[in-house]
Amino acid sequence: MKIAVDAMGGDHAPVEIVKGSVEAAREYGIPVILVGDHDRIHQELAQLSASSESNIEVRHASEVVGMDEHPANAMRRKTDSSIVVAGNLVINGEAEAMVSAGNTGAAMAVATIKIGRIPGIGRPAIASFLPTMRGKCILLDAGANVDCSVDNLLQFAIMGKQYAESVLKVENPRIGLLSIGEEPTKGDELTKATNARLSSEDLNFIGNVEGKEIFRGAADVVVCDGFAGNIVLKVAEGVGELISKLLLDELGSRSLLETAAPALRVMKSKMDYSEYGGAPLLGVNGVCIIGHGRSDGKAIRNAIRAAATAVENDVVGCIRASVRQKNF
Amino acid sequence: MKIAVDAMGGDHAPVEIVKGSVEAAREYGIPVILVGDHDRIHQELAQLSASSESNIEVRHASEVVGMDEHPANAMRRKTDSSIVVAGNLVINGEAEAMVSAGNTGAAMAVATIKIGRIPGIGRPAIASFLPTMRGKCILLDAGANVDCSVDNLLQFAIMGKQYAESVLKVENPRIGLLSIGEEPTKGDELTKATNARLSSEDLNFIGNVEGKEIFRGAADVVVCDGFAGNIVLKVAEGVGELISKLLLDELGSRSLLETAAPALRVMKSKMDYSEYGGAPLLGVNGVCIIGHGRSDGKAIRNAIRAAATAVENDVVGCIRASVRQKNF
Repeated sequence: MKIAVDAMGGDHAPVEIVKGSVEAAREYGIPVILVGDHDRIHQELAQLSASSESNIEVRHASEVVGMDEHPANAMRRKTDSSIVVAGNLVINGEAEAMVSAGNTGAAMAVATIKIGRIPGIGRPAIASFLPTMRGKCILLDAGANVDCSVDNLLQFAIMGKQYAESVLKVENPRIGLLSIGEEPTKGDELTKATNARLSSEDLNFIGNVEGKEIFRGAADVVVCDGFAGNIVLKVAEGVGELISKLLLDELGSRSLLETAAPALRVMKSKMDYSEYGGAPLLGVNGVCIIGHGRSDGKAIRNAIRAAATAVENDVVGCIRASVRQKNF
Repeated sequence: MKIAVDAMGGDHAPVEIVKGSVEAAREYGIPVILVGDHDRIHQELAQLSASSESNIEVRHASEVVGMDEHPANAMRRKTDSSIVVAGNLVINGEAEAMVSAGNTGAAMAVATIKIGRIPGIGRPAIASFLPTMRGKCILLDAGANVDCSVDNLLQFAIMGKQYAESVLKVENPRIGLLSIGEEPTKGDELTKATNARLSSEDLNFIGNVEGKEIFRGAADVVVCDGFAGNIVLKVAEGVGELISKLLLDELGSRSLLETAAPALRVMKSKMDYSEYGGAPLLGVNGVCIIGHGRSDGKAIRNAIRAAATAVENDVVGCIRASVRQKNF
């Protein structure tokens, strides 16, 4: 098994991407293929004394897709970009998974259009992880699809269940539907219709889950369209930021900053995206992990580990098998 | 000016409702009419030595709408319930505003159906307040209308602007549209169409605002449908709860709990709904403040003050005038 890593994607590429990849290769023994500018990557590897590491290959790609480029256009035009070449490694079987912290849309375009969707899946979804009082939960879709159908949401539920079971090893994961009240009659038209549909399926569907209940750990998988899902993620991030600021202002003024700092760090790590590494794009014919643009070495290392775990547990095969039964 | 208060609505009614009303009458000199069971209200007033306070009247109502009753049915059936009688006081001009922490749907039904909508307003909206790094912002709709049209959202923007200007005294309030990216092309179909519409209106429209930016204070008024708005509120509440728990767990284990407690209290108060008193229902022909079901005396006192401020600044007249110009 090898993981193709887009070495040129992300705010801190290639430095932090190479650093995280070297860590993953050394600490977890995961073989990686670093894709991007040959000279720059080797320069970073030399810095880390990792030039001749047996677990690390370099594959040259002469172009880079910028963070603000139009995803589909960039993918078509820049055929020798690091993200396209990384995708090609998965397509031709040289790698089992790809990891990119670059232009999210471009990574999704490469995964969805080039690697392709699993038969029966209408739209792949980004699965994201949220900390809860009981551990963590999977939220999907986290922003890939803004306008969804009931079928889309049912497929998200199936994919989330498979990921929770096969990768996170949650037995019989509790599937919740994001809404604004627990009763099946609460929510917008899409949510009400989806509640009825999920109730009739062979899923451990626990019904509607409110925003507050997510963080209490009410469900293992929370299903929603990408508009609502992205709002949940961004609001959670914003509230975390605000509370940290209020608290630091207040602690600072009471000269408690120093003594409380370790506690604040622990809190921050539980809320920190880099702990989870990245967001798997579920529903494509290969493992694809999308990292945050701000990814540092630790986030990349964790994203590579997440990719390897998804490959080892054949999450793509599990989703393919369970979707096949449904005849979408 | 008198404020009609539903003394029987809310988890802590009538005790906390009467307490908060007495505080508002005493501290702010706001005349209140307590509506509900005559004997129980007088019993509470006696406890507070407020039986003969000149600013406090009692109006008997023999029935109560329960928190879980069907709103419209309850309103029609229980014609002598405290919420219906409070609404009648506004309709017949005995009171200028009503405050209820009871069944939200029933309060909305009384306001919308009995007191009636402002001509041109399709759907009244619940305006809620969120703490930001720069103070606070108004979010609407916070949950009254789950499926909305572009016209609805434009009206929410106009109502939010009027409230910010006339009650909160914000000059030329910045109006933002909740979405999942700053560009006008980001968001679901409703949001994209609304962005185009708001851009063409004479509003200080600053464009799309992401969930994270709300809490950084990017806008004074954030417009969205009630599904998304309610998710924002509940997620903010859930994340606040989670962080408090993580922090207390951690501080406890480091024996810092006692020293950090004052800081945590200050933080909590900034995130606390009771500071804001309640949520105005905008778009009806009268001032109506909806309190949280958990309202304590302090929340009710602040809700009564918010109602009085809205009356003094004629927010209903301001909304009526600005909607009239639009010819909806």
